[in-house]
Amino acid sequence: MKILLVNPNATQAITDACSGLARGAASTETEVIAWTNREGPPIVDSFYADYAAGWALSRALPRVTPPPDAVVLAGFGNYGTAAVKEVMDVPVVNIAEAAFAFALPFCHRFAVLTAPARMVPYTQDLISLLGVAGRCAAVHAVDLPPLDEGEPSPGSAVTAIVTAAEQVIGESGADLVVLGGARLSPYAARLRERVAALIVEPIACGVQLAEAAVRLRLRQSKAGKFAAPPGFGQGRDA
Amino acid sequence: MKILLVNPNATQAITDACSGLARGAASTETEVIAWTNREGPPIVDSFYADYAAGWALSRALPRVTPPPDAVVLAGFGNYGTAAVKEVMDVPVVNIAEAAFAFALPFCHRFAVLTAPARMVPYTQDLISLLGVAGRCAAVHAVDLPPLDEGEPSPGSAVTAIVTAAEQVIGESGADLVVLGGARLSPYAARLRERVAALIVEPIACGVQLAEAAVRLRLRQSKAGKFAAPPGFGQGRDA
Amino acid sequence: MKILLVNPNATQAITDACSGLARGAASTETEVIAWTNREGPPIVDSFYADYAAGWALSRALPRVTPPPDAVVLAGFGNYGTAAVKEVMDVPVVNIAEAAFAFALPFCHRFAVLTAPARMVPYTQDLISLLGVAGRCAAVHAVDLPPLDEGEPSPGSAVTAIVTAAEQVIGESGADLVVLGGARLSPYAARLRERVAALIVEPIACGVQLAEAAVRLRLRQSKAGKFAAPPGFGQGRDA
Amino acid sequence: MKILLVNPNATQAITDACSGLARGAASTETEVIAWTNREGPPIVDSFYADYAAGWALSRALPRVTPPPDAVVLAGFGNYGTAAVKEVMDVPVVNIAEAAFAFALPFCHRFAVLTAPARMVPYTQDLISLLGVAGRCAAVHAVDLPPLDEGEPSPGSAVTAIVTAAEQVIGESGADLVVLGGARLSPYAARLRERVAALIVEPIACGVQLAEAAVRLRLRQSKAGKFAAPPGFGQGRDA
Amino acid sequence: MKILLVNPNATQAITDACSGLARGAASTETEVIAWTNREGPPIVDSFYADYAAGWALSRALPRVTPPPDAVVLAGFGNYGTAAVKEVMDVPVVNIAEAAFAFALPFCHRFAVLTAPARMVPYTQDLISLLGVAGRCAAVHAVDLPPLDEGEPSPGSAVTAIVTAAEQVIGESGADLVVLGGARLSPYAARLRERVAALIVEPIACGVQLAEAAVRLRLRQSKAGKFAAPPGFGQGRDA
Amino acid sequence: MKILLVNPNATQAITDACSGLARGAASTETEVIAWTNREGPPIVDSFYADYAAGWALSRALPRVTPPPDAVVLAGFGNYGTAAVKEVMDVPVVNIAEAAFAFALPFCHRFAVLTAPARMVPYTQDLISLLGVAGRCAAVHAVDLPPLDEGEPSPGSAVTAIVTAAEQVIGESGADLVVLGGARLSPYAARLRERVAALIVEPIACGVQLAEAAVRLRLRQSKAGKFAAPPGFGQGRDA
Repeated sequence: MKILLVNPNATQAITDACSGLARGAASTETEVIAWTNREGPPIVDSFYADYAAGWALSRALPRVTPPPDAVVLAGFGNYGTAAVKEVMDVPVVNIAEAAFAFALPFCHRFAVLTAPARMVPYTQDLISLLGVAGRCAAVHAVDLPPLDEGEPSPGSAVTAIVTAAEQVIGESGADLVVLGGARLSPYAARLRERVAALIVEPIACGVQLAEAAVRLRLRQSKAGKFAAPPGFGQGRDA
Repeated sequence: MKILLVNPNATQAITDACSGLARGAASTETEVIAWTNREGPPIVDSFYADYAAGWALSRALPRVTPPPDAVVLAGFGNYGTAAVKEVMDVPVVNIAEAAFAFALPFCHRFAVLTAPARMVPYTQDLISLLGVAGRCAAVHAVDLPPLDEGEPSPGSAVTAIVTAAEQVIGESGADLVVLGGARLSPYAARLRERVAALIVEPIACGVQLAEAAVRLRLRQSKAGKFAAPPGFGQGRDA
Repeated sequence: MKILLVNPNATQAITDACSGLARGAASTETEVIAWTNREGPPIVDSFYADYAAGWALSRALPRVTPPPDAVVLAGFGNYGTAAVKEVMDVPVVNIAEAAFAFALPFCHRFAVLTAPARMVPYTQDLISLLGVAGRCAAVHAVDLPPLDEGEPSPGSAVTAIVTAAEQVIGESGADLVVLGGARLSPYAARLRERVAALIVEPIACGVQLAEAAVRLRLRQSKAGKFAAPPGFGQGRDA
Repeated sequence: MKILLVNPNATQAITDACSGLARGAASTETEVIAWTNREGPPIVDSFYADYAAGWALSRALPRVTPPPDAVVLAGFGNYGTAAVKEVMDVPVVNIAEAAFAFALPFCHRFAVLTAPARMVPYTQDLISLLGVAGRCAAVHAVDLPPLDEGEPSPGSAVTAIVTAAEQVIGESGADLVVLGGARLSPYAARLRERVAALIVEPIACGVQLAEAAVRLRLRQSKAGKFAAPPGFGQGRDA
Repeated sequence: MKILLVNPNATQAITDACSGLARGAASTETEVIAWTNREGPPIVDSFYADYAAGWALSRALPRVTPPPDAVVLAGFGNYGTAAVKEVMDVPVVNIAEAAFAFALPFCHRFAVLTAPARMVPYTQDLISLLGVAGRCAAVHAVDLPPLDEGEPSPGSAVTAIVTAAEQVIGESGADLVVLGGARLSPYAARLRERVAALIVEPIACGVQLAEAAVRLRLRQSKAGKFAAPPGFGQGRDA
Repeated sequence: MKILLVNPNATQAITDACSGLARGAASTETEVIAWTNREGPPIVDSFYADYAAGWALSRALPRVTPPPDAVVLAGFGNYGTAAVKEVMDVPVVNIAEAAFAFALPFCHRFAVLTAPARMVPYTQDLISLLGVAGRCAAVHAVDLPPLDEGEPSPGSAVTAIVTAAEQVIGESGADLVVLGGARLSPYAARLRERVAALIVEPIACGVQLAEAAVRLRLRQSKAGKFAAPPGFGQGRDA
């Protein structure tokens, strides 16, 4: 099957990193097609960028040809996920949803790490919207340098994430940690060696959930919220 | 003071209707400047249109000159309200927020009427996001003909809204009804003659709340969620 | 318009301070008429005093002549607000309700400061009753000397409030602080110079919300909870 | 032990009916001392009457001599229960609290019947305040004639209550029904013959819970919310 | 990989039906090993049977040799799922958890159908425990004849389920229906032809989620709630 | 009356300690019959042991002859309480339920102490299931040595519990502390001398609540969740 791995932002380096993780998580018969939201913002680090990303996505994705068997929205946020579900007929899986789908059966309460700190309220809203706040112990920021200073060394990134994970586990009682952002995902393997709680990496979850949905012929229900927009496909969306 | 009354969709007739209601509700010293989201969708009737509207709004509004004293977002929905709050320095009031701000002190539990039926889940998400679901008795659809069939006669529109209001009051125990959409707002006065529960018309609430915020020098807190996006105003948003 | 500014306790000095804040917040065409609950307790610092205040208020306010256009209940608490709404035909706005009405659109999550510490549970109950607990990050006590030791110097009061505000912001992530008590309100302006989060002063909010309600012809719904008590106005309440 | 059975309203006939139920439920060594709130309202059928009742109660009860071993507040409402707990040193049990204490272990979800219909919102607020809304399936009004028309015949009262009980059970799935008012309590025995769900009569629960508290030396915690009001017992409350 | 498909009850016919569904949903490289809880009850239709099933499962499953790569608990209930997660080192997926994991991304609000009616409260408790009640529109019973009367004809079973589905969709606004019981699962394909809402069949979800967990090397977190019981594997559990 | 005091685990020393507390709390006319769950686990310290205990209890208790007037389940946990309520016709009271029944009227928010730390998630699930999480300030572990090291001296146990109580009171604002485990109950009297908040000892609450239920002829509702299991008493449960 063909899975479209969608980077909601316009930064090719992030697409590359995400698609590497996605291919590592995909089944052998799955083809992961990386797709960059070239009309989107360089990164989704605000509600402003969220809307920029979501509008570009929901216009562009219906026009991707040939249509994939499923879409994985590979950013840890909202950025128009419901809009994409409306305009697509194939299953659309957001990696945050996928991460929580895998977190719930395997923990008591999960924590989400995010960066930068300004994304904490954004992430709390996302968790409430998805209806899983009752299982969320905390959302906690990782202290990473701003993106425009360049990525820190892997060692210092891992140290910062481990510090944040241990703090949130100690304070909140979480027994599972979700890596809530593209800057955190690449360190999942190394974090598993150093953190006692279960580490959930969302891109891998998204790929597996999308594959499963295709196999089970499941997709977003078209009986209500995610029905095609009125007039969509009949010129109004052109 | 100057209040920018923002119609989030591109339909001038709706702008005209809303700005009439807004001017009727404004204090005499207030100038209501109507603004139409020309780059937005013809109407916000889906999440897809919500993102279209929100992205256009959050790009265009920071460039309005001269900047107004406050912004009233005159659509009953979300459409990037948080993004607009990020990018604006003046107070930004969404009319749904304003309607709930006036509903809470004056009722036990409120109901929201909306049209068309597909907007019920959208509206439920909005109410949850705003944190007032505990005071919401129900969200109920009004049975109006589709927009592309033209507006019904005022008499039949009023009848349809009264029918929906009485049903939701009887079933849910609501003692206040919020008119959740631009198609419903123009009938507020006539509904008050026929429905026992209090009728709240959101555009008027938005104007009054915005005026009050200006007088009190309040605006969205810039200390967290609504801080300007990283790099905003320094070329990244150009 | 005439707004009755009601001090729920019997202490004239508090009435004077509150009415000063109210007049500073009122529109020029508004007349603020200060009213002291002479049959009430010296201060509302317990549930016992809450009932003393509320019973006196709900008997006395219907007899105020000429009736005002709106009533602002200028204590940060409950003290029979629902009872007053039942017995009055004009809009009744409690300043806690008003503060939350202005807080919700302008923050992610608000914190409430209160004094003394024994009012923390009382305030938590109030917030739950009003249905906005989901947006409340924390209720926190300010360490002020007991009232019978006299008011501290403004400088030391401001220091105590800033300390409490910074602590609650740091611990809870609140981006807006509501000043929950008559002892805190007078310092709002000075706090705004020293605290990064938005400061909401409830008396000003109450005046503006009451003015707006009068302009919009809104008042508590008489269709249910706030209908006049059975037999009221027909001798039973004499 | 001596239990003060407090009728929060001033109507002796209600005191008599309640104390009959209380004595029927009390252990043989318990003396039930009926007490009527002579300064209170004829009945608690509004928030206005709630405050009238509560203020009279919280002033009068601390002066009852000799002090009882426990107080049972025998009205299904709030009427200053927290205030009474503050001013009393002996355990204070409200019969609504007691009814819920017995309902929770013995049901999946309970329903509350109340009369008249205007007390539905009042009762919903009470249930929220007590923190048991998650176990409450519904609050439902019984269609009884207004009090000033005199009590209906027992047969027609039972019929009205059974009708309401069956409706709320069918609609809400409740498996236990709490009789939420002094007009309903006398019919408990007859209702048990005709309704499949468990019937909980609150006065009996209040007496038993108060007796148990005395035996266990439990009373309201004086470490926070229910500490004596500042200055209470030192002249301020005189 | 080897997945142990666990029927929590002792009825071989149910094992056969479930394993057929499971094999239909499994990837080709997956071996589904059916396992019947021979020490369990004939069916899980009460809390009593739940404990019978759970205790037998949690003793027997650790002794299955060779250990599988994952366990799918193929009953729509609780029956000791947490206990099994404690005693197993491989991932354990309950099909109710799996159904909700797939439901959340693909709906606004889901409904659960169950049979018989006495399982409605049981299922409501399960949904609360899993933390997804905020996304559950309703739990509704299907009117099927008691098991000891034999299974109805497929046609009449489908009719009963469609009737229940349409009723719950109409009343609750659900756009997705979870088939909450082994008696309902076999009809999933036929229901999809007749019900507009998305139909989720839990056994298939369980198999796919378990496969995905194995591929991602995820299992229940051993850092807290699901750590091995004290002394387990050291004789205490013998 | 005869109350069966049920120790859910198989350890006679715990039965002895619990029955001593129970007899101290019982009325003189009550006979407390201690019963040990000999087929159960040595202690309930995991979900695995919970199911072991619950299954043994729900099989054995219906066969106790002569049947008691009420059953008190004297472990602070779940261990099949709903199953026991199904299979018994007499009232069944779990001591955790009883403790919360007494806590709610007498506090603002309660804290629960438990040991060992792994029981914190288990206890949080219990509190959620019982529907009282909104009144629970925190669940906190007491640092006691593992059971297989023998009991600590009373002095060091009291010190550990006081330390935990003071910490949880300070951090969470709780004004009442529930002793959530058989290892904590024996120290209730000594803790009351040293902790300002109210201390609730669950076994005593369970005995008093069971006595009261018998006097009031209340038991678990047999109209839904707690109806006898299908076929129970007709051979299926043999």
